[in-house]
Amino acid sequence: MRIVVLGGAGFIGKKLVTKLLNRGLVSLNGRPLEAFDQLVVFDKVKATGLPEDPRLEILEGDVADLETVRELLGDHTDLIFHLAAVVSGEAEKDFDLGMRVNLQASMQILEHCRFIKRAPVLVFASSCAAYGIELSELIRDDTAPSPQSSYGTQKVMVDLLINDYSRRGFIDGRSLRLPTITVRPGKPNAATTSFVSSIIREPLQGRRANCPVAPEVKLWIHSPEKVTENFIHAAHIPAQAFKSNRVVNLPGITVTVKQMVDALEAVAGKEATELIDWEPDAFLQSIVLTFPREFVTEKALALGFQQDPSLESIIEAFIEHELT
Amino acid sequence: MRIVVLGGAGFIGKKLVTKLLNRGLVSLNGRPLEAFDQLVVFDKVKATGLPEDPRLEILEGDVADLETVRELLGDHTDLIFHLAAVVSGEAEKDFDLGMRVNLQASMQILEHCRFIKRAPVLVFASSCAAYGIELSELIRDDTAPSPQSSYGTQKVMVDLLINDYSRRGFIDGRSLRLPTITVRPGKPNAATTSFVSSIIREPLQGRRANCPVAPEVKLWIHSPEKVTENFIHAAHIPAQAFKSNRVVNLPGITVTVKQMVDALEAVAGKEATELIDWEPDAFLQSIVLTFPREFVTEKALALGFQQDPSLESIIEAFIEHELT
Repeated sequence: MRIVVLGGAGFIGKKLVTKLLNRGLVSLNGRPLEAFDQLVVFDKVKATGLPEDPRLEILEGDVADLETVRELLGDHTDLIFHLAAVVSGEAEKDFDLGMRVNLQASMQILEHCRFIKRAPVLVFASSCAAYGIELSELIRDDTAPSPQSSYGTQKVMVDLLINDYSRRGFIDGRSLRLPTITVRPGKPNAATTSFVSSIIREPLQGRRANCPVAPEVKLWIHSPEKVTENFIHAAHIPAQAFKSNRVVNLPGITVTVKQMVDALEAVAGKEATELIDWEPDAFLQSIVLTFPREFVTEKALALGFQQDPSLESIIEAFIEHELT
Repeated sequence: MRIVVLGGAGFIGKKLVTKLLNRGLVSLNGRPLEAFDQLVVFDKVKATGLPEDPRLEILEGDVADLETVRELLGDHTDLIFHLAAVVSGEAEKDFDLGMRVNLQASMQILEHCRFIKRAPVLVFASSCAAYGIELSELIRDDTAPSPQSSYGTQKVMVDLLINDYSRRGFIDGRSLRLPTITVRPGKPNAATTSFVSSIIREPLQGRRANCPVAPEVKLWIHSPEKVTENFIHAAHIPAQAFKSNRVVNLPGITVTVKQMVDALEAVAGKEATELIDWEPDAFLQSIVLTFPREFVTEKALALGFQQDPSLESIIEAFIEHELT
């Protein structure tokens, strides 16, 4: 059995791969599973810092290159985690790059799956940037997507294809619309929500961070721990449980920026929160303020996807896993 | 000023072109308009039966061929009506053809528009096959698309791109989700809803027609007259009236198959309705029964799109325009 993780050199990808290696997969699409013997991690750079494991193969290349994808997936891949993406801010600033990686590459991957002998399970990292809304709106499972960014548009288009390719039996797809993943370790990236992690991560390490939006702004967040658990859970669920729609809004939690800062202060004191600057950024606001922040995720909870118990638990887990 | 009608050799395309030639366009995107001097009708076959007019140019070619599209639209097209499509039944049976024409060709057209000097107004023929639902569901303007056909999937994907390309200023798009257009003249085609026209058109001409669904099945219909008026109206409306969403569910009317047959009988007597056979067709039912049939189209009505006054008016207009 062969698993491929596309975009596996990123923080979430590596966390997912590590979990898979440590724990194995007990079932796939509701069927009990033998152990897997191949786990391929693919990204534009070689993934580093992964466990030594004979099942692991680390490859680098261009996910938008058709020949590369053909060679990578071949005709016998059983499970694909597709996390490869150009992040939101970058896809907004470089339209062509976003279209190439987020849309065209995904289309090529899906097309290639038609030539895999047994339709693979494909778990896709979609995004709650699918919704761009009035500030007051509550997002339900049947709310129409209304992306106000090119990134969100590209993600919703792939969601639609995943449904149609699954309906036709070309793949067995599962698309997870991710909340803002917080707290990310490492450096700030070009995601428009990068600051959501920075305002916790940087002060905890004695560094300044900027918050480009007002304290009362609400965010829809999910921890790295839960999102990687939910990726694996998505592969486990039997296809028929999704009925005619393979897209799921993951169960994040709604917090205000102020609640995040208060939680940081509770954990690390005023000397931490005083390291936060409050300089507005018009570009970031133009995207972030269109993201929805209040959801009812009945479908995800009914399918057994996990929610973070609290904001404090997210911050404590970050300190435990990444800072100690 | 140059207008291009893609897919202009079809019934709706020719009706639209004839209206444009006879009447001109008085405004575009809310701005008063000088007369247009070029109207190009493009399709895979040469359009026939159009008025003689010095402004008219009739071309044939492959809408999915990039070079053809580049030459056709050049760098100074002002208004594009994009009606070119593989119909629903054909796109379901030939997945690759549907993807090529309904999705890839549309993506290429949108891409080319970025190189037109002044962002063109683009009016797209989308479809209510965007929705595939439980029979009881009422579709509102903010109901999430849930296509249950490849045709519907492809149309929704283009709707999303039209919104994003418009938001970025690459085009000034307007996407109309069409109900089932009834009564179409000519021969049955490969649309899964072709029978909706056949059961009226054929008996009126003394020919037999088959109805593959039960009399109580509801349909969401719109006349050829109103849809062509609404295409022209879509070009007139100022961009800002659409706010952040260029997609509109056109205001059809809900009728049952039985109501259609009763209306036919009222107009043409029992000798007409006795020409209808009632042979179920599993393939057609598998698609048609997923189409939604009850809508609330507040947005379309607020934007001034027109609704048919009645089923009888649709049948009478067909007799007047197509049979006399």
